[in-house]
Amino acid sequence: MHTPLTSLLQIQHPILLAPMGSVSGGALAAAVSGAGGLGMIGAGYGDADWLRRELATAGDARIGVGFITWALAQQPDLLELALAHGPAAVMFSFGDCRPFLVQVRAAGAKAICQVQTVADACRAADAGADVIVAQGTEAGGHGAERGTFALVPAVVDAVSPLPVVAAGGVADGRGLAAALLLGASGVLVGTRFFATEEALGHPAAKQAIVDAAGDDTVRTRVFDIVRGYPWPAPYTGRALRNRFLAAWHGREDELEHAVEAERARYWQAAAEGDVDTAVVFAGDAVDCIDAIEPAASVVQRLAAEAERLLKGASDLVG
Amino acid sequence: MHTPLTSLLQIQHPILLAPMGSVSGGALAAAVSGAGGLGMIGAGYGDADWLRRELATAGDARIGVGFITWALAQQPDLLELALAHGPAAVMFSFGDCRPFLVQVRAAGAKAICQVQTVADACRAADAGADVIVAQGTEAGGHGAERGTFALVPAVVDAVSPLPVVAAGGVADGRGLAAALLLGASGVLVGTRFFATEEALGHPAAKQAIVDAAGDDTVRTRVFDIVRGYPWPAPYTGRALRNRFLAAWHGREDELEHAVEAERARYWQAAAEGDVDTAVVFAGDAVDCIDAIEPAASVVQRLAAEAERLLKGASDLVG
Repeated sequence: MHTPLTSLLQIQHPILLAPMGSVSGGALAAAVSGAGGLGMIGAGYGDADWLRRELATAGDARIGVGFITWALAQQPDLLELALAHGPAAVMFSFGDCRPFLVQVRAAGAKAICQVQTVADACRAADAGADVIVAQGTEAGGHGAERGTFALVPAVVDAVSPLPVVAAGGVADGRGLAAALLLGASGVLVGTRFFATEEALGHPAAKQAIVDAAGDDTVRTRVFDIVRGYPWPAPYTGRALRNRFLAAWHGREDELEHAVEAERARYWQAAAEGDVDTAVVFAGDAVDCIDAIEPAASVVQRLAAEAERLLKGASDLVG
Repeated sequence: MHTPLTSLLQIQHPILLAPMGSVSGGALAAAVSGAGGLGMIGAGYGDADWLRRELATAGDARIGVGFITWALAQQPDLLELALAHGPAAVMFSFGDCRPFLVQVRAAGAKAICQVQTVADACRAADAGADVIVAQGTEAGGHGAERGTFALVPAVVDAVSPLPVVAAGGVADGRGLAAALLLGASGVLVGTRFFATEEALGHPAAKQAIVDAAGDDTVRTRVFDIVRGYPWPAPYTGRALRNRFLAAWHGREDELEHAVEAERARYWQAAAEGDVDTAVVFAGDAVDCIDAIEPAASVVQRLAAEAERLLKGASDLVG
C-alpha cells in the first residue's frame, strides 16, 4: 500500500505502533519497524533510565518515540534524550504539542501529533505537525469521547493535505482498509500490539486481552487516581472491566479519599500480574484479538488482509 | 453496489433511512425508497394517529417502519397498524425485540434489529432477526457507548452470515465504502437525512445541523428528563450542545426536581423552533453535512461516492 504516510515516513506498510507506556519498549518498536511499519517507544510518564534502556534495546532499528505531552512538559529534557538517538519521528499525545515541534523538526525527525477533536487537529496542523493522528474513543488507554468513524473523515477534511492516521478500534486488516477509504493515510495500532510476544507488560495482561470482549471495556479515571497520575480533562483511560473498576468506577471522590490505603495494594497487584486489581488498558477492538503473536506476524497479516480487501473492493460494485 | 442486504431487501443501494421519531415521516421515507434505498417511518413513542397519517403520506412507496422497542411494548397494537400497511421491513431498536419477530415474519416483512453491543447482536440473531444494525455511539439520538469502527466487524463476526448494517457516523460516501470494508452489507443513515427537505422537524433544527461541528455533540439524558420519556439504561441521546444542555447536563437530579417548571417552557421552545432550548438530536458526522438537500440527492451522492471509492481502492495497492 502506498499512501502519503508511507512516503513521508519511508515505511513499507502504513501501520504505526502506538507508543504505549510500559508496553511499547525497544524490542516491540524494533519488531514493528523490522516488519515494515513504524515502531514507536512509549516514553510514558517520563522515566529517563527506562527510556535510555529501551532506546538501547531498539539498537539501530529505525523507530520513533512517543510522549505524553503534559508529562513531557514537566521534564522537557527527555525530548533531547530521545532526539539524541536519531528517531525517525516523535509523537505527542494529550496536551499542547506546540512548544516542542521546532526542536523535533530541527533534529530532522517528523512530528506526529495525536488529537481527539477536529479543533485540536487544526491547532496541531497550524503549529507545523507533519502527521495528525485522529484518535477515536475506541482506543485502549488514554483518549477522549469522539468515535473513530466520524472523527477521521472530519479531521481529513480539516487538515488536508496533511496525512491523517486513524487510531482507535483498529486490530485487523478490515480496520486498515476501512481507514484508508475514510481518507486516512494509515493506522496507529495499540491493543493488538500489546498482545504480542515482544510487548512489555505482564503475561496475564496480554492473556486478559485475548480473553476479553469489546463489550467489556470502559473509559475510566479510577486507575489514574489510584496510581496518582494527574491526567487533565478530558482524558480518561479505556480499560478492561475488572474487580477494582467495579468497586470504584462512579465513586471517584471516595477513591480520592481512600487512595493512601489503596495505592500500595494496587502496585503490589500490578507487580504480581493480578489483573482483577491492576489495570489492563485495552481498546474496543479486543473482539478481533485471539492470540499472543510475534509483532511481525501482526504487521504482515494486517497489511495482507487490507491489500486483499482493497484489491477486491471493486467487486462490490456491479 | 450488490451486497447481501440489497438482495434481501430488494433495494438498489445499501442505504437505509434511520426511522427517526418526529423526523422520518412518510414523505422522507418515500423519497429515500424512491431513490433506491429503503426509507423507514419512525413510529417514535407511539402516536397511532401520527403513524396512520405518515403511512398514508408514504402511499404505495415500498418502505419500512421502525419502532422504539420499549415504547412498542407499552402499545403493542401499533405493530398491527404498521403491518396492515404491508411494509417491506420492520425495525426494532432499544429493548427486547424478541416478542415481536414472529408477527413480523408471519406478515412477510423482514425483521431488522438494531443493537449497540455484540451480546445484544447475538440475542437478536438467535431470535430470528433478518438483519442486524450495529449502531455506534457516534449516532445522533438514542444509542449507547461502543463506537462504530470496532463494533461493526465484531458484530459481523458474531452473527455471520446474517447481513449487518453499520449505523452511527455515516454521512457521506466514505462512510458507506468504509462500512462495507469493515464487513457490513450497508449503512443506516440518520442525521444526514434529518437535514433534507422532506424531513419533518423544524427548519431551525435542520439549519443547526448544517451549522454544527462534530466536536459539539454530546450524549445526554437531560432532554429525556425534561420531556418525560422514561428511557431505560444504558441509552442516552446524542444531541447538539445548546443552552439547555449547558444548564442541566451533569445536574440531572436537580432537573428531575425542577421538571414541572421546565417542561412547559421546553415544549413551548420546541414548538417555536428555539434550538437554544429544544433538543436537536444529531450525530458526530455533522462535520460532513453542509446543506439541506432533497433526500434523493443524498442517496445518490452517497452511492456514487462509495462506488467511486470502491472502484479506485485497488489503486492504493502497489
